[in-house]
Amino acid sequence: MERINKIKKLLNDLELDAILIKSKTTKKYLQTLTGSGVNILITKDSQYLILDGRYTNEAKSMNFLFEIIENTPSKSNKSHFDIVYEIFKDNKYSKLGIESQAYSISDYKELNKYDFKLTLIGDEINKVRIIKDREEINILKEACEITDKIFENVLKHIKIGVSKNEISAFVHFYSLKYGASKLSFDPVITSGVRTALPHGRPTSKKIESGDTIMIDFGIEYKNYQSDMTRTIFIGKPNPKMLEIYNIVKLAQQVGIGNIKEGNKARNIDYKVRKIIDDAGYGKYFNHGLGHGIGIGDGCEYPFLNESSETILCENMVMSCEPGIYIPNLGGVRIEDDVWIKDGIGTILNKTTKDIIILED
Amino acid sequence: MERINKIKKLLNDLELDAILIKSKTTKKYLQTLTGSGVNILITKDSQYLILDGRYTNEAKSMNFLFEIIENTPSKSNKSHFDIVYEIFKDNKYSKLGIESQAYSISDYKELNKYDFKLTLIGDEINKVRIIKDREEINILKEACEITDKIFENVLKHIKIGVSKNEISAFVHFYSLKYGASKLSFDPVITSGVRTALPHGRPTSKKIESGDTIMIDFGIEYKNYQSDMTRTIFIGKPNPKMLEIYNIVKLAQQVGIGNIKEGNKARNIDYKVRKIIDDAGYGKYFNHGLGHGIGIGDGCEYPFLNESSETILCENMVMSCEPGIYIPNLGGVRIEDDVWIKDGIGTILNKTTKDIIILED
Repeated sequence: MERINKIKKLLNDLELDAILIKSKTTKKYLQTLTGSGVNILITKDSQYLILDGRYTNEAKSMNFLFEIIENTPSKSNKSHFDIVYEIFKDNKYSKLGIESQAYSISDYKELNKYDFKLTLIGDEINKVRIIKDREEINILKEACEITDKIFENVLKHIKIGVSKNEISAFVHFYSLKYGASKLSFDPVITSGVRTALPHGRPTSKKIESGDTIMIDFGIEYKNYQSDMTRTIFIGKPNPKMLEIYNIVKLAQQVGIGNIKEGNKARNIDYKVRKIIDDAGYGKYFNHGLGHGIGIGDGCEYPFLNESSETILCENMVMSCEPGIYIPNLGGVRIEDDVWIKDGIGTILNKTTKDIIILED
Repeated sequence: MERINKIKKLLNDLELDAILIKSKTTKKYLQTLTGSGVNILITKDSQYLILDGRYTNEAKSMNFLFEIIENTPSKSNKSHFDIVYEIFKDNKYSKLGIESQAYSISDYKELNKYDFKLTLIGDEINKVRIIKDREEINILKEACEITDKIFENVLKHIKIGVSKNEISAFVHFYSLKYGASKLSFDPVITSGVRTALPHGRPTSKKIESGDTIMIDFGIEYKNYQSDMTRTIFIGKPNPKMLEIYNIVKLAQQVGIGNIKEGNKARNIDYKVRKIIDDAGYGKYFNHGLGHGIGIGDGCEYPFLNESSETILCENMVMSCEPGIYIPNLGGVRIEDDVWIKDGIGTILNKTTKDIIILED
């Protein structure tokens, strides 16, 4: 009910009578079924799941907080917009908010045929999700524990002659084996000079002695996503890469130390960027410091970057992931997921950030 | 150029001056970069890639057929819509088609500020993709070969006590190992009574003796997707399930035999459905017979179902996947990908459909 009430507070702030929800992200947030035949209407006075017959039994067994309205358009000849309109008439509502990114232009043209007073909702629901509740934190903790375990196991398979595609195969294998429903994004698995690409994709190229190896992956677990990066070495590392590693490690520690209640997001980015800049590598840190961690398949706040005005609060969760990427040499990124607990940034991952050098 | 010309023919059919393309699916089809900062404009007279600076070098090295226009909105203060508008003014164009599913409502409102004569394009580009060219067929052949190899390897790991999540882990592992960029959809991996759910997700439940096991998965390979289902048994199968297996196998063979140039899609669905119906299981075949195989992350034609009016032609590729699903007992589905070659349905998968019974 806590999350529904947060949406109702938003309704009130935006002076709406109801919000119609279609996005998978918000459905996950409200812990409902996420199928395309499920639509959610949150009104000032109640909340409804409008769904087609395929979903009714399952919905009834899990969604105790919602009034369930079964509507199978092919049988009723009514769209879910018609159902919403009937609820509006019955309750003398007029002002409807819709998730603008989730609805298509055709939906919009359709909606304009009714006399709703429409408001397009952009980022507002994403912003509601910025503060995590206890249940969300617990899932994220579990997700990060599993992520550590996956990394530990993948490490055993990294040796000279193994390709990045094979490492990716092991990342997928252990993720699924340990309970992830999927990977949260296509993993970044690069070696050698390709580590200079912040988001390089795995290839069939094999690991060689002296390689830097970057592994950035996350899992989706109970609808929430983890995200972790480690950069490791095999055989004797290039001294320049070791220097970079230590700078990034220090910068990341400073970042985490500054992830605290009351700090402004862009100032944290600034402090980390300054360390890298002062070390002479400023131009090689070409992305923001971090992003929100949560359901994560839409936009997840807060962002830690040069323009973010967000003031950090208790129970926000975010990544902290500085990097240095030097073309034709290589790159280092170190990333953890950080929870603000009792005002202080607490790292959810346990994987070491001490330099890992595998024997060749 | 062949694919660009197909889009130009569509332009002509729809009496448009140009089509603006945003969807990843169509970008894949046109073999361009697929990033969000890349937009494609196909006009009567030319074709353009409008992209921000990040993509320029890569685009220049691969897209020889397009005129490349670099526009980084944060520097130029111009949106890509402004660029399109300039091209329209220069060429005295007025009629612009846009992919309606790809653009958001906010984009649409923005576009309406210009004096374009807008046409929303729905399924038309998907329909252009229905006939595959030689290169597409070759990729699909390779994807299906890899799919066979994955299945063969996964089979070795299926034994009593292994969970469905672990089987899913092996499916992911071998997919990535053998060159897939990812799975094309969340695989259906079920056993026992859960095989009665056509799209059941893997769980932590372990395989038991006598289980029916359904595995439906596909890979994404060079932007194209395969799709294959096999239903196997471990230990002594339930005789009823064996009966069902043989009916589905026969029905699937009849389906493939009818996938021929000149046949109407819904008639093929009808013939297969009739076999299952005559055997007394009609109400347990509760989905269409098949769908198009190709890029597949949008809508892929042709559909083989009760309402499809499509007449099959040379070089269409589609799945053929009848199933029988009996609640509280179990289900069987058998699926292959079928290419119409020299007028006849040719199966791209080589995995056997003879009954597979693993020792327990």
